[in-house]
Amino acid sequence: MKKYLFLLLTVAVLSVGFSGVVAASPLQGSEDDVYYMVTFVSGIEYWKPAFKGMEAAAKNLGVTVKYTGANDYDINQQVTVLEQVIAKKPAGILLTCINPDALKRPINGAIEQGIPVVTFDADSPKSDRYSFLATSNYSAGVKAARYLAELNNEKGEVGLITIPGQLNHEERAAGFKETIANEYPNMEVASVQDGKSDQAASAAAMGAMLQAHPNLVGVFTTEASTGVGAATAVKEADKVGDVNIISFDVDKGTLDFVKSGVIDATIAQGTWTMGYWGEMFLFHLANDLLTPIDGDWKTAKVAPLPAYVDTGVSIVTKDNVEYFYGK
Amino acid sequence: MKKYLFLLLTVAVLSVGFSGVVAASPLQGSEDDVYYMVTFVSGIEYWKPAFKGMEAAAKNLGVTVKYTGANDYDINQQVTVLEQVIAKKPAGILLTCINPDALKRPINGAIEQGIPVVTFDADSPKSDRYSFLATSNYSAGVKAARYLAELNNEKGEVGLITIPGQLNHEERAAGFKETIANEYPNMEVASVQDGKSDQAASAAAMGAMLQAHPNLVGVFTTEASTGVGAATAVKEADKVGDVNIISFDVDKGTLDFVKSGVIDATIAQGTWTMGYWGEMFLFHLANDLLTPIDGDWKTAKVAPLPAYVDTGVSIVTKDNVEYFYGK
Repeated sequence: MKKYLFLLLTVAVLSVGFSGVVAASPLQGSEDDVYYMVTFVSGIEYWKPAFKGMEAAAKNLGVTVKYTGANDYDINQQVTVLEQVIAKKPAGILLTCINPDALKRPINGAIEQGIPVVTFDADSPKSDRYSFLATSNYSAGVKAARYLAELNNEKGEVGLITIPGQLNHEERAAGFKETIANEYPNMEVASVQDGKSDQAASAAAMGAMLQAHPNLVGVFTTEASTGVGAATAVKEADKVGDVNIISFDVDKGTLDFVKSGVIDATIAQGTWTMGYWGEMFLFHLANDLLTPIDGDWKTAKVAPLPAYVDTGVSIVTKDNVEYFYGK
Repeated sequence: MKKYLFLLLTVAVLSVGFSGVVAASPLQGSEDDVYYMVTFVSGIEYWKPAFKGMEAAAKNLGVTVKYTGANDYDINQQVTVLEQVIAKKPAGILLTCINPDALKRPINGAIEQGIPVVTFDADSPKSDRYSFLATSNYSAGVKAARYLAELNNEKGEVGLITIPGQLNHEERAAGFKETIANEYPNMEVASVQDGKSDQAASAAAMGAMLQAHPNLVGVFTTEASTGVGAATAVKEADKVGDVNIISFDVDKGTLDFVKSGVIDATIAQGTWTMGYWGEMFLFHLANDLLTPIDGDWKTAKVAPLPAYVDTGVSIVTKDNVEYFYGK
């Protein structure tokens, strides 16, 4: 009996000791700490991988995350939803902004109350949010240009179908055009068309481009429905394989064309990564784990977090397309 | 006796249960996991906050970090040091690169062996490193311009002393010049001089600028010894307060001039932040905590980490200068 008692005592002491050490991990929170993701047009597929990333971080940290947002593309609605979330006094808010300025006041109000706010995908740059995680659209365009060049031995005329006047598309287009001009002396952007974010318009633009430029070896479309339109036109013109298409994003229509080989590659954004590191950043702020300066970073006026994170892109081809369905 | 036994049994079971839950934290490593920071000119003050940040992350994660690097500004020496570190098969390497291409081969070799590599401060962009954390020099120049504008009610002639031909300085200068041109119609960059990374040369350039532009209200110096030189000249010309100086980095000479009010502000880089999140990134790779896609991100060819992190800058003035001594 004494033997058992001793054994049990040992186990108890060791366990308490062990759990004591491990429980001290500053990277473990409580399930009572609730973090929110707030979006707009909250029902679309696009936000799902971002929230999955946030959930993955929350699981590792032992905290709770909740998803909400404005149902519609409506500024006042998003302001209201954000204010309702702030009223719950959450541990932190990971926010994507319908517009750069509309959410500035509630964001700054939350931060004044001590609720950390980090933005992702679309920013409010003049607000006091601590960090912003998003795709560098320029870099994504650079990557598209390099991949298209690789497919064509760095030679030939290429085209671009984009949405002029819309900042993220202008940036993708600029990254593509400047890379072709600067890095590939034997390549040329022979035609730039407006896809109007519409399949039929993009198919027409692609058809016209094929007629005007019979030697075209490839095209970059900066948006998913543009890519699907271009794919339809290239297929109809019986030019699959002769004209390489690089598209953007990973909706089902695009992935199906990648799978069937009409679209050669599409650019997947790092939305999961935005959610994962966004939650990590919020947890660090909420638990005051960032001491870039001895003493108090608030008094020292030191930026506690990275100002901006380019979450990067991945190239989706026939070889890895299966992984992207249902993401 | 039975009562005690029962109590002990309960404690043991609870403790084991508790420690089981807590010990399962995926964000706790082992002290046997050793991560390295590898630099060049390894003895300078500049790397210290970066390694402090790496140590802070290691403490939170329960792992070990070690510091090493090439003593001199010598490419072959850094290659040798890096290869020696790789031979130890560490859990990960946080590396700053003496030159963009020299370390590409050992970096890729490490990654092939399964040793994750992340770069900071200076990159090897064509290597397979998973991420790069650094100051956006352009953004730092933007911030300098905005602060100088704020000090002068967005009016007046300003100057710039930089190092033409050196990429990071060209970027800081471009951020400054473009921001003044685009955001402040009543301001003008009246003079751009070469400070030659030398105090005496910068003092001479500043002196000449003051004579040629008697209405000058401020100057941005993109480097620390340039700032100290400019401060000396402004002091000698008895123009302290009339000509605002915004400098760069936080060496003792610069901070002393901030403290005495000759330099109005200096830009502090987020080197601590590079070290902290660099270690976090490496830990996540080493422990396979990143699942941006169901299944294996390596097979799916998905970027597991942010491509680039702009660690941001902080503005150091008389008000917060004390925090930056000895950092």
